[in-house]
Amino acid sequence: MALLKDLEWRYATKKYDPSKKVSQEDVDKIVEAARLAPTSSGMQQFRVFVVSSPELKEKLVPIANGQQIVAEASHVLIFAAWDQYTAERIDSIFKLTTQERGLPSGKFNDYTNRLKAVYLKQTPEENFVHTARQAYIGFGLSIAQAAELKIDATPMEGFNNQQLDELLDLRSKGLKSVLMLPIGYRDEENDWLLPMKKVRNPKEEFAVEL
Amino acid sequence: MALLKDLEWRYATKKYDPSKKVSQEDVDKIVEAARLAPTSSGMQQFRVFVVSSPELKEKLVPIANGQQIVAEASHVLIFAAWDQYTAERIDSIFKLTTQERGLPSGKFNDYTNRLKAVYLKQTPEENFVHTARQAYIGFGLSIAQAAELKIDATPMEGFNNQQLDELLDLRSKGLKSVLMLPIGYRDEENDWLLPMKKVRNPKEEFAVEL
Repeated sequence: MALLKDLEWRYATKKYDPSKKVSQEDVDKIVEAARLAPTSSGMQQFRVFVVSSPELKEKLVPIANGQQIVAEASHVLIFAAWDQYTAERIDSIFKLTTQERGLPSGKFNDYTNRLKAVYLKQTPEENFVHTARQAYIGFGLSIAQAAELKIDATPMEGFNNQQLDELLDLRSKGLKSVLMLPIGYRDEENDWLLPMKKVRNPKEEFAVEL
Repeated sequence: MALLKDLEWRYATKKYDPSKKVSQEDVDKIVEAARLAPTSSGMQQFRVFVVSSPELKEKLVPIANGQQIVAEASHVLIFAAWDQYTAERIDSIFKLTTQERGLPSGKFNDYTNRLKAVYLKQTPEENFVHTARQAYIGFGLSIAQAAELKIDATPMEGFNNQQLDELLDLRSKGLKSVLMLPIGYRDEENDWLLPMKKVRNPKEEFAVEL
């Protein structure tokens, strides 16, 4: 029940105590949960940027529609997905897998050819619909890992993606920002959401057994 | 480190032991992890269908491109997202939240009006890009919950969504299928992937500190 208790404990923190910092060890674990996330064909179509610089966090405030939370949090994780599929990207992870598993070279050629036949004929926009989805799996696992460590986090989609891409020069890396995750420690006295009951649709409404 | 160990333990199971069934109690926990998942504005834009009927699982095989895994697994969870946003859907969860938190009626009116101004002017296709993403958060947490229980799972995107929507009559419910998650117990002797090393891009490649 550990995970369920962690998920009950967590909430989308609205106010951080800016004096409390998350340790490097704990940040590493939160990133590691995203790195271990399953992704489509194991391609890890997203990357994580970990912002701790106070100057850079301040620059995130206008990008996040003026929300001070991104400056007050200890760190801000930014999840960015591949802007498109390329043959090189598809080959890269399977080359690594071939090496790591000690398999004969070319072992995955049929498989990567099938992937290329699907993705390389799609537009970058169609591809990004798919790569961005993968980032959400890692995002969920990072939130769960933070909660396990009793570290607060605020899942955020609402920011100016284009401005963030420019600030971090993501386009030159072939990435587009998808999600932000401020992490830190709640300001217990000043977070209006903390005392509020967590609300979800009841199980009978959420799930159907067939 | 519990979650990280669980994520190290899990793998995309390729062969299940059809004689081993997941208990109802454990299925409920795996669904509960998805129900507790954070979603955009807390709207829970997805639902989970839990298929245990052998007849229905057999019908999933052709939809999953002939993969027997969906018949051999103990259960198949199907994640389906809202086909679009509607005013009624947006209001529904905030009405529940108002009741559950004992807040004055209309407390969220300004907020829901802002959400409606964003979503109701978008096409159903644009909306579905957003609702489908939310399903991936719950999907990741269900996979983590299964792993915590030492239950195997197979994240699956590759199936005929339209056929699945028809089989489960999802369109009449305003839903579109997004993901499948067979769960069960691995066939240790016959799963070719089990002995293979888990491969991920190294941390230095995956994450950047700023």
